[in-house]
Amino acid sequence: MERHFDEQLTVLKHTLIKMSALSEAMIAEAIQVLCERNTSAVARIHEHEEQVNHLQIEIDSICLRLIALYQPTAGDLRFILGAVKTNADLERMADQAVNICNKAERLLKEPQPKLLATISEMAALASLMVKESLHAYVNRAVDQARTVLLRDDQLDDMNRRITNDLLALMQKDAGMIQQALDLLLVARNLERIGDHATNIAENAIFVVKGVDVRHHRK
Amino acid sequence: MERHFDEQLTVLKHTLIKMSALSEAMIAEAIQVLCERNTSAVARIHEHEEQVNHLQIEIDSICLRLIALYQPTAGDLRFILGAVKTNADLERMADQAVNICNKAERLLKEPQPKLLATISEMAALASLMVKESLHAYVNRAVDQARTVLLRDDQLDDMNRRITNDLLALMQKDAGMIQQALDLLLVARNLERIGDHATNIAENAIFVVKGVDVRHHRK
Repeated sequence: MERHFDEQLTVLKHTLIKMSALSEAMIAEAIQVLCERNTSAVARIHEHEEQVNHLQIEIDSICLRLIALYQPTAGDLRFILGAVKTNADLERMADQAVNICNKAERLLKEPQPKLLATISEMAALASLMVKESLHAYVNRAVDQARTVLLRDDQLDDMNRRITNDLLALMQKDAGMIQQALDLLLVARNLERIGDHATNIAENAIFVVKGVDVRHHRK
Repeated sequence: MERHFDEQLTVLKHTLIKMSALSEAMIAEAIQVLCERNTSAVARIHEHEEQVNHLQIEIDSICLRLIALYQPTAGDLRFILGAVKTNADLERMADQAVNICNKAERLLKEPQPKLLATISEMAALASLMVKESLHAYVNRAVDQARTVLLRDDQLDDMNRRITNDLLALMQKDAGMIQQALDLLLVARNLERIGDHATNIAENAIFVVKGVDVRHHRK
């Protein structure tokens, strides 16, 4: 029984890692459409979205089965309930990547927009946060989880700065308003991905410490 | 044992209802600041946010305890796992209300902005969706959950329309850009509240039917 439970828990971890790798790939693909004008990434992003949707349902059902069959307690139960929440966050990250891709496709009809370097930097940071938060979660690595919380402040700062720059751009040139607005919303999508990674990192700390760190940072 | 479990389940439901009522109150308060320039609502919203944060931790710990002590299965286990997710959605709705309030406070320094009637209509619809989705969840009412899914399409439409109107306003008058952008972001906050209500409605259908309706509508 114990051995079966451990095997199933490993399956859960691997499925979470697979889902997180897909979400990271989708962020990279959305940025390829936006910054490199690589339209072939659009089809890939939609394939990956399908896979994420299937994995989301699969992870919930693994969690349900693990609890129903093995009645885990304490740390293991916290891990599984946290996985249910982490699963929702991973799926919403993938949704944000699709939103970025949609705006990127519209921007393809316009001249190459300004400030793409900052967007690309934000995407790299958000992507790193996805990887680190999931790693912290499955490995119950509290220090790495805390690193993610710090990176989120950095991402919020970048978002504030690019919002101001884009606002100034809009005010200077009315012809740039639609384009700048799209980029501003892309920056917000990336900032939201960071928020989801932060949620996962907070879950990781809760699993290990049994202490809820949500709302203590605010 | 059975009786204790039912009592605890009732506590869980009441706590979810309390949290949802607070999130609804916060939406109303944020709209009071924005549309009626009622600054006394600002303090109330922050008090309510504190209460929501406490309830969020309480609900997670009730769920953990219910599973650990009573080993529920089938529909009851689905209900409790769904409550863990619903809890996260309720808290994020409250966050969106705080975001609206922050933008409303900045807008107080400007002349009364245009298009507030539409924002106020969107807020009423989003608020109704919060109430209905939570009601559908705790009462396992599938028909009501399906109504919420339909209302979400309506809210998305309203968001698209106001976004276009605000964009036109920005292009016509550069002096209105900051103000119109703030309102556009408020509309998106309301649309996100609708998304969270939709998640809760989908959870409700899953609890009753054991069928995952996520991603089938897209």
